[in-house]
Amino acid sequence: MATERDLVVLGVGMHPWGKWGRNFVEYGLVAAKAALADAGMVWRDIQFVAGADTIRNGYPGFVAGSTFSQAMGWTGAQISSSYAACASGAQGMQSARAQILAGFADVAMVIGADTTPKGFFAPVGGERKEDPDWQRFHLLGATNPAFFALNARRRIDVFGDTPDDFAMVKVKNSKAGVANPYARFRKEFTLDDFAGSPIVSDPLRLLDICATSDGAAAVIICTPEYAKAKLGTLEGTVRIRAVANTTPTYPQVRLELPDIATDSNAVVAAPALGFKDSVAHNAYEQAGLGPEDLSCAEVYDLSTALELDWYENLGLCPEGEGASLVRSGATALGGRVPVNASGGLASFGEAIPAQAIAQVCELTWQLRGQADGHQVEDAKVGLAINQGLFGHGSCTILSK
Amino acid sequence: MATERDLVVLGVGMHPWGKWGRNFVEYGLVAAKAALADAGMVWRDIQFVAGADTIRNGYPGFVAGSTFSQAMGWTGAQISSSYAACASGAQGMQSARAQILAGFADVAMVIGADTTPKGFFAPVGGERKEDPDWQRFHLLGATNPAFFALNARRRIDVFGDTPDDFAMVKVKNSKAGVANPYARFRKEFTLDDFAGSPIVSDPLRLLDICATSDGAAAVIICTPEYAKAKLGTLEGTVRIRAVANTTPTYPQVRLELPDIATDSNAVVAAPALGFKDSVAHNAYEQAGLGPEDLSCAEVYDLSTALELDWYENLGLCPEGEGASLVRSGATALGGRVPVNASGGLASFGEAIPAQAIAQVCELTWQLRGQADGHQVEDAKVGLAINQGLFGHGSCTILSK
Repeated sequence: MATERDLVVLGVGMHPWGKWGRNFVEYGLVAAKAALADAGMVWRDIQFVAGADTIRNGYPGFVAGSTFSQAMGWTGAQISSSYAACASGAQGMQSARAQILAGFADVAMVIGADTTPKGFFAPVGGERKEDPDWQRFHLLGATNPAFFALNARRRIDVFGDTPDDFAMVKVKNSKAGVANPYARFRKEFTLDDFAGSPIVSDPLRLLDICATSDGAAAVIICTPEYAKAKLGTLEGTVRIRAVANTTPTYPQVRLELPDIATDSNAVVAAPALGFKDSVAHNAYEQAGLGPEDLSCAEVYDLSTALELDWYENLGLCPEGEGASLVRSGATALGGRVPVNASGGLASFGEAIPAQAIAQVCELTWQLRGQADGHQVEDAKVGLAINQGLFGHGSCTILSK
Repeated sequence: MATERDLVVLGVGMHPWGKWGRNFVEYGLVAAKAALADAGMVWRDIQFVAGADTIRNGYPGFVAGSTFSQAMGWTGAQISSSYAACASGAQGMQSARAQILAGFADVAMVIGADTTPKGFFAPVGGERKEDPDWQRFHLLGATNPAFFALNARRRIDVFGDTPDDFAMVKVKNSKAGVANPYARFRKEFTLDDFAGSPIVSDPLRLLDICATSDGAAAVIICTPEYAKAKLGTLEGTVRIRAVANTTPTYPQVRLELPDIATDSNAVVAAPALGFKDSVAHNAYEQAGLGPEDLSCAEVYDLSTALELDWYENLGLCPEGEGASLVRSGATALGGRVPVNASGGLASFGEAIPAQAIAQVCELTWQLRGQADGHQVEDAKVGLAINQGLFGHGSCTILSK
């Protein structure tokens, strides 16, 4: 049951994902206006603006809260600009949520947009030999897909997964994404397509790895009181049950981006819950819900193999059984607990600061029954989970 | 009177300001450990870490909350990483404050550190012709001091200020900074020194403009309950009465960094309170205090002339009388309301994400009576105000 502390999602809006190279602000304004229209509000109503930053678009990207506020028209509202890599949108959500629950605002907009360069993400410029992100690029030449591949290789070695298991994730997600008007890639792929897909970082092929995309998403959240005054009722509203931003606990014994080594557990024992398990655990605890309560989930499929990890981190199946789960059809549309009914990153590509916000948009549409063509039947509880490099885990749970 | 919502400053710590070009993380750890020692706490006690970002130190700078958390040792704590230019530290303060007041943590650390390149801040790389920061550098060649000079010129034209009035600010601040062990420049300057100081951007000379510095500051804040349990009493503790982060209201008719034009007020009238006046106003309102209550203030003297603006924005004197106020000695140590008893940016130079946090450290020491050699007598209420480009106003009020 939702409580007074469970804020309401009043409006959501997105700009379709794609690759145009235009000013990220332009995408953001489309998403902001769509969210306002969805909520039946005007810009002046917004009391707090939480921007999720982009680090590849100059100074305006570093101060996203300010940039969007000025572009929409300065109103004197308080703002925040947050960065947490792929979890930036979730950190923005928590920023807005905390401001509201602390009594500094009744209603807030969370917004993120990105324009991405072509190809793999390159290192940030400069020589910083103590910077783990510098080290992994300059000492190892390890782009993001190299880390994804190490993780996939681990699944093969430890659990006996096969490249076909990974491909099944793309097959499932690409099928779901065909019906999503916001997805960038709306083409269904089959296992047969994989043989012709070039190896990027063995064992992963191009079709296993998500692209980098342009896109934008915005969410308007408010107190239950504000929503009730506006809507007349809380009946049928989408509520925020958890936003858990979680960092690792020392020693971190699984390799995570961008580190080139794990911590030693020779002296201090590893924590009972690994990092990604703890991300889900904290969200479940906050919401008072468990994996058995989920109608659907949006998980961060930066690679196909990573989606299988998330199944296990979320408790949708025991460790090592992710491949069986995807093969069973349980996580496909129509299955027991559809995962990435939006099409996932496989269909979107990644627009970093917008992605975690887009997950919330998708879940909101699912819970409202508005996800035409990719609707999860009778969705009541949805979860979004993702991870940004440098130890940024985030998990959001919504219910109606 | 402080209320239950007025959080307690439990510990403060700084790394001295200077110019060494070392890894910013190194400075931050010194500040973090100093704040922990000051609070009588260990790192594991910290439940939330609010990092203020630096944008010139690669990826670790973009995720300051994460970077410092990993360097101190991952504990699983929630984190945030905020950027708001010169107001980043204040946005970090508000992030931590909101998390605590929303009930997500009892005690949090706010931390910022910077390593700065030599000379003026250069534009962020890339071609973005719609980016106001790109425009001001590439179309006008306007570095920060050019904006400071435009503002100083305005004071000369509108209020009849003289370059000597501006120099008086440096004379006052440099004298105060001599006794501050954290200040970078601990040399007293006189009006006579100005004649030999090169013009940087007319009418401002090198001595009128603050340097860019390395430095770090950390503050630990908590609920009154937590402080009482730890200290046995709230007697004598420093309380946070306001953290007001304020953006402009359209139309903004005073030129502010980095815009190259003001908004038109031909159709929509300018707001009753200008931007910087509104920053102070919102903080006073939050605290239930006014300018007459201040024992001392730390204001952002990016240039000497800007300090005179702040006097007027804060209501320490009527508009246009800032020069008379500094000449009267009212804002010097021993005066009615000492301003920048720390020595200000004139003595520190600017370490962007650390600066607003350092202001809170200074005020805390003043209110505790620990500002040896630059102590404001019987300080009871202190205010810190600053402004970051892209519309980031911030004002913090502390009392004991």
